[in-house]
Formats: sequence, structure tokens, C-alpha cells
Amino acid sequence: MMGDDDHTAAPRQFELGPFAFDSGYTLPNAKLAYRTFGSLNSAKDNAVLFPHMYSGNSASLAGLIGEGRALDPSQYFIILPDQFGNGLSSSPSNTPAPFDRGQFPPVAISDDVRAQHRLVTEEFGITALHAVVGWSMGGQQTYEWAVRYPEAVRRAAVFAATARTSAHNKLFVDLHTELLRSDPAFADGFYTDPADVRLGLKRHAMAFTMTSTSARFFRDEIWRALGFASADDYGQGFMRGYYQVMDPNNLLCQAAKWRAGDVGLHTGGDLAAALGRISAKFVAVAFSDDMFAPVADHEADVAMIPGARLRVIDSPMGHFTMFGLRPEDGAAIDEVLAELLKS
Amino acid sequence: MMGDDDHTAAPRQFELGPFAFDSGYTLPNAKLAYRTFGSLNSAKDNAVLFPHMYSGNSASLAGLIGEGRALDPSQYFIILPDQFGNGLSSSPSNTPAPFDRGQFPPVAISDDVRAQHRLVTEEFGITALHAVVGWSMGGQQTYEWAVRYPEAVRRAAVFAATARTSAHNKLFVDLHTELLRSDPAFADGFYTDPADVRLGLKRHAMAFTMTSTSARFFRDEIWRALGFASADDYGQGFMRGYYQVMDPNNLLCQAAKWRAGDVGLHTGGDLAAALGRISAKFVAVAFSDDMFAPVADHEADVAMIPGARLRVIDSPMGHFTMFGLRPEDGAAIDEVLAELLKS
Repeated sequence: MMGDDDHTAAPRQFELGPFAFDSGYTLPNAKLAYRTFGSLNSAKDNAVLFPHMYSGNSASLAGLIGEGRALDPSQYFIILPDQFGNGLSSSPSNTPAPFDRGQFPPVAISDDVRAQHRLVTEEFGITALHAVVGWSMGGQQTYEWAVRYPEAVRRAAVFAATARTSAHNKLFVDLHTELLRSDPAFADGFYTDPADVRLGLKRHAMAFTMTSTSARFFRDEIWRALGFASADDYGQGFMRGYYQVMDPNNLLCQAAKWRAGDVGLHTGGDLAAALGRISAKFVAVAFSDDMFAPVADHEADVAMIPGARLRVIDSPMGHFTMFGLRPEDGAAIDEVLAELLKS
Repeated sequence: MMGDDDHTAAPRQFELGPFAFDSGYTLPNAKLAYRTFGSLNSAKDNAVLFPHMYSGNSASLAGLIGEGRALDPSQYFIILPDQFGNGLSSSPSNTPAPFDRGQFPPVAISDDVRAQHRLVTEEFGITALHAVVGWSMGGQQTYEWAVRYPEAVRRAAVFAATARTSAHNKLFVDLHTELLRSDPAFADGFYTDPADVRLGLKRHAMAFTMTSTSARFFRDEIWRALGFASADDYGQGFMRGYYQVMDPNNLLCQAAKWRAGDVGLHTGGDLAAALGRISAKFVAVAFSDDMFAPVADHEADVAMIPGARLRVIDSPMGHFTMFGLRPEDGAAIDEVLAELLKS
């Protein structure tokens, strides 16, 4: 089984058929998009699953994959699934009525992970993953994998994510969703062209500009090294540009999953019991200046996971450290991943 | 000169006459509202000026004043000025056309401080203040006093404020203003009833709920000690309740001052030169978990002020530590103030 050759092309589609979400809605002809890098070996024990973050897709973090990197496609078969609601897997933007746009059913991270499990087992015949790796909402999916399918996850690395979305983090999501919906053009999700919701997308980008890096990022003018002339230039040229092309219903679908993230649901709300199920070699990686998921939140999770370790990567990039926009961030991420993947 | 007896009554009014703002607009019949506590002694050397924060007024922080407290009205004559745009001094909400509502002229912190200087010198005949004390935007006014009138400020205490609004902090203000204006009922500032702008006020409160305390406040459920049943209960019952009664144009007037705060304007942009002018005994007080003005921002300012000291108060209340909602916060604030005022 070889990986895709051209990662700028459209992803592949795994047909899920009628798929029952945990919310109780069945989506006919549900689709899970994905990409792969590298080759699955004959023992089928070199697969690394790398789910993606809010607003991303299966190609977003391909920059972390390459020969000589920790995620080396010459060693590992790397599977990058698209999450529901990202516009490539089944989403508000690509599903026919009566499940289209503002009436797409509620989705949970558990749905993503159940769909990914079917891909991994049915399409590839993989029994256990060498590792699951994820950042932010990708980290939430990693937690779901490690708790739901402990026997199928040998190693896990979670970057800047918590096992249960914190009350503070929920306020970030509440603000994002309020901002997207604040635009009269949003029309309860029944707009014709997502670009018409430009005010909602602009406001949503403003919030992310404020929260996604750090005070230090702006104090030390790190935007200069990223090629911008001012903080405003960064906010408009990078952050608004990044979000302006997105579909608000798709973002809202993902945001609802993010807000509800909680592996404690497996054990009647007992988070310690849920995390106690994890048998993977586990590393939680916090970013020093992350406003979304502070270091202390990671410490609390790690204390409940058997044998888990905490690593802190010092960076002014805050939550966005994972983008690897600064070479030293990419190197620090690689170091953590290499150690885990080779263990 | 005795202080007011009843601080629940309307503040007094100092008539400024035609007042030229630094923006180049002259406001006819400008008014500076204020309250006082205690008595001015015959030497006129026991006056403490205590300007207030964004969204506040001259009564907001009266809880920090009292016999046995650092701000003891039996020792000090405490003057609490209302800032322009707070609804009591000249503001969008209380000024006749053509300077009313959405066409109130741009105001700067320098305007507040020049008006306060007239009150202090013309109304009370005070040459030098025993101290100027302020939190947040009150701290910005304190900086302006210490740089503009160094001979008139013997001591200064700034809480959770910087000499120049940081690029990161400007993003907070940009978001607040965008949120207030996002409500179609805002109508470019020409609404009839501020309560009609309820969506804008709600969204503005949501942003403050997220940023004004800290991740730790929510992680440790500090809202319980404040009498709330959940984080959402705190957000709605306290934060939305606090802002819902305010006038959006007034908030926007204050926000613009906050965003533009920069005492470096006195010295052609050279902040170190401006802060080098300060002759007051100076203490900058940072709150450990403040998202608006982090500890590092205070360190940078203090390094440029002759003889200044930095104090850090550890509290999960973040920027809102100054409200003294937890008894230990009030005690820590008192300790810093008592040391300064008695020096």
C-alpha cells in the first residue's frame, strides 16, 4: 500500500455508507476524506494516524512530514484523515438537503474517531497503530482514540489539547461561534456563498489573531520573522487571509465538536477513570505561551494517565507553535515525536 | 475642604467651559464630574488622585477607600475624577448635538489628565498631589500625570497598566469595539436607547468574560467563592449584567483612549525619554495572571523609570484583581498602597 504521490491533489474518499452520528442522526452516504504518506509494511505495524486541528484539513500539517523528519514517510505509513465538517469529509458545505448547510446534524469527536477506526481497520486492515499524533482538535481526537480503542494505539502524542475542554477554553469557542453568527449575511446558516459572510469571518479572524499566538509574539515582534511589516499586517495578511476562504457552517460544525470534547463521557463523567484506560506510551506536549490550553491544563491530564510524560516547548507562537513557522519550533516538535515514535 | 458625605448620590460637576481636546475639537460647556473622600488639609499636601478604569466611574472603586485601609479618608483627601466618555463627565450620552452620540469628538487620555489638572489646581488650589493611583485606564492616566506634570506628582502607583498600549492589547480593544459595533441596532452610534444595542453589549461582555480574569480562575472555579453556580452563571450574571446597562458610544469613546495610550507622544515617540522624566516615587503593580497587561510588560516599563519598583500580586482574578472581590486581593493591594503612601 503506497501513499499518495501528489498531496496538492484532492484527497481520497472512504465511503462510510449510512453513518449514525452519536447525536442520533444518520447521514446517508457519509464520506471520510484522507491522505496518506509512505507505505504500509507487510506486518501492518508502521501506521501513524495524524488527525488535524480546527479549520484544517488533511494537507494542513504536511510540512511536518518528510524524509529526515520524525514523521518520515520512508519509515512510517502516515494517514491524515479529514474531520467531519472540514469541507472534504462530509460537511455542511458538501452534503445534500435535508442535511445541508444550516441543518447539518450535530457531530462529535467520537464520530470522527469511529469513522477513522473504520478506515484504519476496513480499508487498511490495521489492527494497531504505531502511533496517533494530533494537535489541538487533532489532540482531542488522539485522546478519543487512546481511551476508546486502547488496544489499537501503541503510542500517542497530544500537542496543545486537553482530554476535556476546559471551562475557559469553552469561552473562546463561544466567542468564535457568536462572531461567525453575528453577520446578518450568515442567515442562520442558509447563505448561498460563504464569502458573503465576510464580516463574520473577519470578526472570527480578529479573535484568533488576539488569542492564537501570545502577548510575547507581539511584544517581541515575531511577525517580522514571518515576513510582515506590522502587527496589523500580520492580522490582516495572515490571519484574515487564512480564515476568509472558509465556510462558516463548516467552522461551526467543528467548533461544536471542539467545545464538547470530553473523554470522560466514556466513564459517566469520571475523567480519571477514562484516562486510566489508556495503555499507549503517552506524551502530552504543552506550548509555553498557549492561551487556549495552558501548561497547567496538560499537567492535570498527565497526572491521570498511566506512565504519561509532559513536555513543554518554549515558544512565543502560543497555540500556533504547531504550525512550525519558526524553524526552532519545528525542530522541537520533531524531537518529541522522534523520541516517541522510536520508543 | 470636606469630602462628599453621600457617595451614592450624583457626583459633583466641575465646569471646564469650552475645552479643546487634543484631537482639535472644542467641546462647549465641557464638564468634569468627580467625587471626593476625606478633607484637604491646610497645607494642601494630602491629596490623592484616583482616576478610574474603562467602563467605570468615580464610585467604582470606592470599596478600596475607608478608615483603616491604605486609602484612608481620615488621612487623605481622595479625589476620584470621572473620565470623559463615562456618562458622568462630558460623554457621547450626555452632550447636545452636534457633539452627541455617534459624533462625539475623539478624546485622548491627555485630555482627561489636563482636565483633572485644572480641577486639582483651580478648584482645590493644590500644587502637588501626595499621590496619583490608578488601575488599567486609571493607570494610563497615572502615567500621563507622572510624565506631563512631574512636579505635581510626588508618588504614583500604577496597577495593571502600561505606559504605551501594547500591540497585543490593541487587539483586545479592536475586538471590543468591533463587537459593540457589530449589532445592527448600533446604527453607527445613532441609536435612541442604549439598551437596544443589547447584542453588541452581550458580545462585548463575552469577550471580557474570556479575557478579564484568567484560565486559572475557571480551572479552580473561583466563581464559586463569588457566589455563582457555574462558569456560565458567572458570565451571564456578573459580566453581562455589569456591561448590559452601559452606553455603547460611551464605551467606544473610552476604548479609543485606551487603544491610543502612549506617554511616548510627549517625546516624539521615545518612550524611554518620556519615562525618564518621571520624578515621582513610582511603583508598578502587575497581576500574575493578567491577560491584558502581562507581568513582562510592567518589567519593561519599570526598567525605564528612575527608581521605580515592580510588585507582582499573585491572583487568579487576572486583570480584575483590582476589584478586590477576594479579600486577599484587597489586602495585597492595600499593602502596596500603604507602603507607597507612607513613604
